[in-house]
Amino acid sequence: MPRYAIGVEYDGSEFRGWQRLTQPGAVDDRTVQGVLETALSSVADAPVTTVCAGRTDAGVHARCQVAHFDSDAVRDPRAWTLGTTTRLPPSVSVVWCRPVADDFNARFSAVARRYRYRILNRQVRPALARQWLSWHWRPLDAGAMHRAAQALLGEHDFGAFRSAECEATHARRDLQRIAVSREGEVVAIDVQANAFLHHMVRNIVGSLLEVGAGARPEAWIAELLALRDRTRAGPTAPAAGLVFVGPLYPAAHGLPADVSLP
Amino acid sequence: MPRYAIGVEYDGSEFRGWQRLTQPGAVDDRTVQGVLETALSSVADAPVTTVCAGRTDAGVHARCQVAHFDSDAVRDPRAWTLGTTTRLPPSVSVVWCRPVADDFNARFSAVARRYRYRILNRQVRPALARQWLSWHWRPLDAGAMHRAAQALLGEHDFGAFRSAECEATHARRDLQRIAVSREGEVVAIDVQANAFLHHMVRNIVGSLLEVGAGARPEAWIAELLALRDRTRAGPTAPAAGLVFVGPLYPAAHGLPADVSLP
Repeated sequence: MPRYAIGVEYDGSEFRGWQRLTQPGAVDDRTVQGVLETALSSVADAPVTTVCAGRTDAGVHARCQVAHFDSDAVRDPRAWTLGTTTRLPPSVSVVWCRPVADDFNARFSAVARRYRYRILNRQVRPALARQWLSWHWRPLDAGAMHRAAQALLGEHDFGAFRSAECEATHARRDLQRIAVSREGEVVAIDVQANAFLHHMVRNIVGSLLEVGAGARPEAWIAELLALRDRTRAGPTAPAAGLVFVGPLYPAAHGLPADVSLP
Repeated sequence: MPRYAIGVEYDGSEFRGWQRLTQPGAVDDRTVQGVLETALSSVADAPVTTVCAGRTDAGVHARCQVAHFDSDAVRDPRAWTLGTTTRLPPSVSVVWCRPVADDFNARFSAVARRYRYRILNRQVRPALARQWLSWHWRPLDAGAMHRAAQALLGEHDFGAFRSAECEATHARRDLQRIAVSREGEVVAIDVQANAFLHHMVRNIVGSLLEVGAGARPEAWIAELLALRDRTRAGPTAPAAGLVFVGPLYPAAHGLPADVSLP
C-alpha cells in the first residue's frame, strides 16, 4: 500500500495530547491523532491510522509534527494536504504531504527531535500569545541557564529528568544541542536530542529555571544529571510553553528542508 | 485627583473591541474597556473610568495600549498593576502603571501610534498562533508591497482607506513610517502615523495584498491615495492579524521606554 508522510501543525492547548484515547474508528475529538485520523479517513474514504515522530502531551504544541500513514486511495499530495485540513478543527493544519518509500517510519526513521520552550519573564502574566508562552515573574539569568545546561550535552542516563509514568526501556539519550537565549522579555530554550523521555524537556526547563532565578548554582544541573534521581530535580515546567519544533530525518527520504538533514 | 497611566496588553479575539458598550458602572464583559474599568474600580473600591490612546476594533489586539484614569484611592503602581491584573480575564493584563501629571491625556498627549499587521503566507491556514495571524495563500511579493507602500508616507488625505463608519472630522493624517518585511512564511507590515482613521491600517493592508499577489501594479497605491475613493481600494483585511503596538508620548511624561520618545 502506498505510504505518505505529512507535516502537522497544532495548538496543543485544545487537546489531551497527540495519542488517541479510543480504538481506531471510534470518534475521538480530544486528541490530535483522533481528529487527524478522522479527517484523513474522510479524504481516503477508508480507515486511516497514523504513526507520529513524537507523541506530545496534553497542552504541548507542534510546529511540525511528522506522521506517516498507508492508503490505497488515489489522492495527490495537494488533496491530502488541503482536503484533510478542511476537515480539521482550526487548531490543526496539515502543512505538507509527501509520498515516501515503505521503509520510512515517522517514529523510527527520525534521527533527532527538536523542542523549543518559551517563557515570558516579567512581573505580569501574558495576555497576548498566552496559549504558547509559559510565565516566570522572577528575573531570569539566561546566561547562567545556558552555561548550566551545557552539562547535559552528550549521551547520558537522563533518569533525573524522566517522569514517573515514562515507559521507555532505558533512560539513555543523546542530547545534541541545548541553548538558552533571551529576546526582550522572552527566554527561549532550544533542545535537540536523538529522542526524549516523558516530560524530559519540561523537567530540564523546571530545573534550569531554579538556576536562572538564582535559587541554585550553575553546577547543580550537572549534579542532578549524575544523581539520576527525579525527586532531587526542579518541578515540571507547564506544558503551554512547549512547542515540538519537529523531527529530523536522513536526506534520502526526500522530506521538506525543515525536517530533513542537509 | 491623582492621575495614572497604565500599559495594557490584550488578546482582542475575545472582545468586541476596546470601547465600552454600556454606561459606566454597568457590567460589560464584551469589551476591553468594560472588563478593565470593572477591575480598576474593584482595586480602587470606587468607580474608575478610562481614556485610551487608540480605540481598537473587535478582534484587534494590543501589545501596549495606554490608558489614563483618575483616582483618590491610595495605591502604589505595583498594586494597580498586579491587583488589577488579578481581577482581569486571562486575555487582558495591566503590564505597568505610572503616576502622571494632570496634563497627561492618553489620547491627546500621544504624538504617534504604531500598528503591526502579520500575514501567514502559505498554502495552508495557520493552526499555531492563528489568533493573531491573518492568512493569505497566494505567494506575496513583500518587496513590491514595501515599495508601493512608500507612496503613503507624509501628510495626506487618507479618504481612500477610511471606513464608511469613520467619525473623524477630516481624513488628513501624517504617515511617518510604513515597512513591509518577510521572515520565512510571515509577511509583516509596520505602520506609524500621528493618528489613524477607522479601519485605516486594515484597508491599507487589503490594498497592499493586491499588489503583493500581483493583481495590481505597485503604482496603484499612489493612485488610490490620490483618488480618495474608498470604493476603489482593496477589501478590509481581517482583524486577527492586527496588533496595536502602542502609542508614543513626549519623553517629559516619564513613561516606559517602549511608549516614550527618546
